[in-house]
Amino acid sequence: MNLRAAFLIVISAYVSTSNAPAFADEGMWTFDNLPRQALQAKFAFAPDQAWVDHVMRASVNLGGCSASMVSAQGLVLTNHHCVAGCLQQLSSAGKNYLQDGFLARKREEEMQCPATEVSRLEQITDLTREMNAATKGLTGEAYKNAQNAMSAKLAADCVGGKKETVRCSVVTLYQGGQYHLYRYHRFSDVRLVWAPEDAAPNFGGDPDNFNFPRFGLDAAMLRAYENGKPAVVKHYFPFSANGAKSDELVFITGNPGSTSRLLTISQLETLRDIRLINRMRRGYELRGALTQYRKLGAEQARVAYNDLFFLENGLKVFSGEFSALQSNDLMARKRAEEASLKAFVANNPELKAEVSGAWDAIARAQAVYREIASEYDAIETGRAFSTRYFGLARALVRGSIETTKPNGDRLPEFASARLPLVERQLFSPAPIYPEFEKLKLEFSLTKLRESLGTDDPFVVQILGKESPEQVAKRVIDGTKLGDPAFRKALWQGDRAVIEKSDDPFLKLVRDIDDQARAIRKRHENEVSAVEQKNAELIAKARFAQLGTKVYPDATGTLRMSFGAVQGWMERGKPVAPFTDFAGAFNRNTGAEPYALPPSWLTSKDRINLAQNYNFVTSNDIIGGNSGSPMINRNAEIVGLAFDGNVHSHGGSFWFDAMVNRTIGVTSGGIQEALKNIYGATELLAEINGK
Amino acid sequence: MNLRAAFLIVISAYVSTSNAPAFADEGMWTFDNLPRQALQAKFAFAPDQAWVDHVMRASVNLGGCSASMVSAQGLVLTNHHCVAGCLQQLSSAGKNYLQDGFLARKREEEMQCPATEVSRLEQITDLTREMNAATKGLTGEAYKNAQNAMSAKLAADCVGGKKETVRCSVVTLYQGGQYHLYRYHRFSDVRLVWAPEDAAPNFGGDPDNFNFPRFGLDAAMLRAYENGKPAVVKHYFPFSANGAKSDELVFITGNPGSTSRLLTISQLETLRDIRLINRMRRGYELRGALTQYRKLGAEQARVAYNDLFFLENGLKVFSGEFSALQSNDLMARKRAEEASLKAFVANNPELKAEVSGAWDAIARAQAVYREIASEYDAIETGRAFSTRYFGLARALVRGSIETTKPNGDRLPEFASARLPLVERQLFSPAPIYPEFEKLKLEFSLTKLRESLGTDDPFVVQILGKESPEQVAKRVIDGTKLGDPAFRKALWQGDRAVIEKSDDPFLKLVRDIDDQARAIRKRHENEVSAVEQKNAELIAKARFAQLGTKVYPDATGTLRMSFGAVQGWMERGKPVAPFTDFAGAFNRNTGAEPYALPPSWLTSKDRINLAQNYNFVTSNDIIGGNSGSPMINRNAEIVGLAFDGNVHSHGGSFWFDAMVNRTIGVTSGGIQEALKNIYGATELLAEINGK
Repeated sequence: MNLRAAFLIVISAYVSTSNAPAFADEGMWTFDNLPRQALQAKFAFAPDQAWVDHVMRASVNLGGCSASMVSAQGLVLTNHHCVAGCLQQLSSAGKNYLQDGFLARKREEEMQCPATEVSRLEQITDLTREMNAATKGLTGEAYKNAQNAMSAKLAADCVGGKKETVRCSVVTLYQGGQYHLYRYHRFSDVRLVWAPEDAAPNFGGDPDNFNFPRFGLDAAMLRAYENGKPAVVKHYFPFSANGAKSDELVFITGNPGSTSRLLTISQLETLRDIRLINRMRRGYELRGALTQYRKLGAEQARVAYNDLFFLENGLKVFSGEFSALQSNDLMARKRAEEASLKAFVANNPELKAEVSGAWDAIARAQAVYREIASEYDAIETGRAFSTRYFGLARALVRGSIETTKPNGDRLPEFASARLPLVERQLFSPAPIYPEFEKLKLEFSLTKLRESLGTDDPFVVQILGKESPEQVAKRVIDGTKLGDPAFRKALWQGDRAVIEKSDDPFLKLVRDIDDQARAIRKRHENEVSAVEQKNAELIAKARFAQLGTKVYPDATGTLRMSFGAVQGWMERGKPVAPFTDFAGAFNRNTGAEPYALPPSWLTSKDRINLAQNYNFVTSNDIIGGNSGSPMINRNAEIVGLAFDGNVHSHGGSFWFDAMVNRTIGVTSGGIQEALKNIYGATELLAEINGK
Repeated sequence: MNLRAAFLIVISAYVSTSNAPAFADEGMWTFDNLPRQALQAKFAFAPDQAWVDHVMRASVNLGGCSASMVSAQGLVLTNHHCVAGCLQQLSSAGKNYLQDGFLARKREEEMQCPATEVSRLEQITDLTREMNAATKGLTGEAYKNAQNAMSAKLAADCVGGKKETVRCSVVTLYQGGQYHLYRYHRFSDVRLVWAPEDAAPNFGGDPDNFNFPRFGLDAAMLRAYENGKPAVVKHYFPFSANGAKSDELVFITGNPGSTSRLLTISQLETLRDIRLINRMRRGYELRGALTQYRKLGAEQARVAYNDLFFLENGLKVFSGEFSALQSNDLMARKRAEEASLKAFVANNPELKAEVSGAWDAIARAQAVYREIASEYDAIETGRAFSTRYFGLARALVRGSIETTKPNGDRLPEFASARLPLVERQLFSPAPIYPEFEKLKLEFSLTKLRESLGTDDPFVVQILGKESPEQVAKRVIDGTKLGDPAFRKALWQGDRAVIEKSDDPFLKLVRDIDDQARAIRKRHENEVSAVEQKNAELIAKARFAQLGTKVYPDATGTLRMSFGAVQGWMERGKPVAPFTDFAGAFNRNTGAEPYALPPSWLTSKDRINLAQNYNFVTSNDIIGGNSGSPMINRNAEIVGLAFDGNVHSHGGSFWFDAMVNRTIGVTSGGIQEALKNIYGATELLAEINGK
């Protein structure tokens, strides 16, 4: 699934993978720098500014996922797996919406998602000059502080007094080559309209994930509300009457989370040798534990569903990325690229003086990272404490300290423009299941001991004479942070209380906060600031070669890619671009994950089995693009992106146009299901503008 | 733990890692080629032939572990984890010998281990000339067949009519540079004498495994019987009165399973990119599943104990080996070695003509392996069917076919000299737990589907329209192979019955046997025969340089290493070579895995807390050496090897004398525990020759 799981590694990087401008269908383009010439040359299509503005405003962000407006009444189309969190939060031991699905027949039946927000990009402003001026001549900590302060100020000014409806952030593009301010319109009241039973979108489960042929109805609908009423929107994508045909031009808009197409060799080696292998070791073990936990009963299966789903998705990504980095071909290509750029720099005296040391500086930062990685991950990123309680306690403890500081001096995640997100997390009524949290906390404490060693002082501090199981039980049994009202009272009351509370989780977070901040600081000063500063220099060299004829690496912000409906060759055999409903029934075994839901089985006679269902296109997307609209040149929905094929994992490092494919549900497939399986006639009428 | 788990990867390789003769304490030496000069030079010790013969005969093999005779009445000293299988097999829901330990106060109380055999190496005969004559001029399948036939014949001739007391095998040393016939005396009646509670040997559990300082009583005693009476043995090691001191010379004898110190670069890359990563992904996930399974209750914890223990041990080995192969230093060293040997060959016209193509041939074999690995592993090695039933069914089905063939034409594992091992497996009364086997089979079928893909014809053949869970339940609920009497009746009756039985496991094995044999044949012809033939050529080049001044790679057969009691430097700090009993009590938290057993807590006042307990030496050992005696120059027990430190994992590829260490229990530590914790006065008297 092409979501941007928290799990996904965010390493910022930038610019195209090749030394030539992006070719074929490569590229995740910002809306202010679309490759008009390439589009014209390849597809004879030249969108005007009105088209671009319309498409930008009909596309929305769903916090880690992508989505689009598909009616004038704020109807939002996205993937089922992008609303799985909401479905789980609305469910209880008595009612499982993940398993049973949901359809609101009337507006009044639409149910608010506790932690979901939709935002629409309204404006892009280039503030590169302001940001550069703020950090001019600075390095290390001073550089980082000045950057944070200016970012916080620009974002706060942009939001002004409208924090309920406006969100702003400074986006670093081309790794510091450009700084843009993105202003969004927020819809913070988002309600569930339709979600099929999980067995339909997740048909094929983990075995079919990232594979094709595919038969998944990974679609769902939400509705944005404003002032208690469906939002009235001007820009939306109607459904295409006929969908897309083979070789037809398709655009995908959405928020690809992160690509790493211009990491240096030393960074790629760190990713391969440290980050990915550690995540795989830990992740596969957790997968085994969660799989067994789900067998304890229906309620445990329900509670652990989402964690396991996203974990398995992440593990496929990591494995695929790891394979790519183990490939001698890929690494040889990367080495050649790096050598070529270094040669370009060496031949330009001015660049040489400024840039030539950048690669070595980044390599030295990698050596520091390798030294501190275990400690940094465990203590600051909180991997030692994998439970929702920890995140809540961290937000309360740090928030209470940071919000007493001037906006520009805060940790960036507590800058004023970011506080609505902090509060959304703190106030969320989504239930927390203590027994399940204990499993995860015990697991992560056990991994803490494994990674740092039994005799490490931090391990001794956390475990003392207790086992991981005992610590997990004690702190979770003792905390009140599972209660949203308790959290709200702490946050909205006298925050000094947070610093004195004997809640075991607040105490735990307070006790480690100095160490966590210290290792964070070291990481910032000796790793991330060094990487950023020097990557900025390398970007400068690239700009000298190519200007902005290349696209920046993915940053979780709105991008457009273009491609065509197209299969590929797999081991010498062609893979056809479309599947149909007949294929889904052929693949049905009745046993999970190949069990079509009862609604499908009883509807079989009504369904047009020859209707195309899933399809592949040559668009360049990555995790975070889940839920992206796939539109034709008339800006009509022809599909809904939900995945990439197995070759898409290498897309983190380069786009291979021959085999890298996006997987989507066809517009016709969605309509067929709404009509003949789910009987969602009102919804069908709405998306068809009737 | 330094056992040779079935899990450990057996890749045959050969000869020393350096181009110079082995230096420092490196080397796992065969008894017919001890490094007398080095011993004399470094330790001023020159053992005579009587000393060597005595030590050879006092050392015994325990099938994947090592051990030694420590009294004239056949008392055998080995590790607790080497008898864990026996302890589990003797246990039941009502009595858990792993947890409670065991001590026979009288001979009559000694309990026979259902599947344990002790064997003592009696004679080594060089048959290189005979083996070479048999394969002269042959390649590929013909080469392999001729080799198998000659091996089977030589072993059968050696055993003669004495299969109850004699075991023989042809050992390939220096990867075909030498073929030696090893003749053993078998003790097939082996009984349990003493084993501490698991909490003592396994104190520190997985976190402390492969770490030091260490506090584990990984010791146990067995007794070899002959004709219903304790075996009378002439050669055994008495316990040293004072143990070993710092820097004292220590010998370790035992059966290191496998090292890979002269794999070619292409083989090391295959190991890194395919074998290890696949084993880690699968193994960590299974670890998570087994850890959760053990939480279901005391009985599930007991049943899954050994599987989890050996899995965790294997995962540490794989991780360590993987890290070593990810190290640029190690790979650069390996590349330099390969380049240097290639240059040596290039400068010798005769060698050049014969050997220079060997590396490329092996690289081509790697490409084939990478192509067929998933299929080969799943179908022929049986990784798709991880359950004891599968091994039993395979032995019955293939055994019934193979034993109708002439000895030389059989699959090697069914040659006449090997049949006692097959029958030991088939007739073993060790209990099988169907529910636990279902977990493992469901898991491995799920991994089969993941690795080959849902649409693969073999996957479709095995799963049909069922889920892995359904298949596992059906075949395990339906099989009678859990009953030893049923297996014995099948094997000893008319074997044609096996070919017609409707037992679901026999049917499963029959149904896939053609495919399994086909992929095995392809692997033999295009991978292993090519590797072996060409490695033999490379070995020839090495011999041309160095003769037998180097030691062959480990092959699971008897070796001797020498070293000294010595700590090492870890991140700039010295690690002292000894721990003591006081340290064990300091480390005790009362929570698993740091909970000393009650017997220790109540004995604390009696124990000499200053007595040394665990220690490290600079001997070169590897998995399979578990249970090895550590002896001084008087051939007295000064310790019992049970592990290596974290740096020992790299020992698969090269021996780093600076940091690679063996971990053992001191002889004084064993005696202290026997005397003051376990009150084993008779045993103490026996090992002290009283």
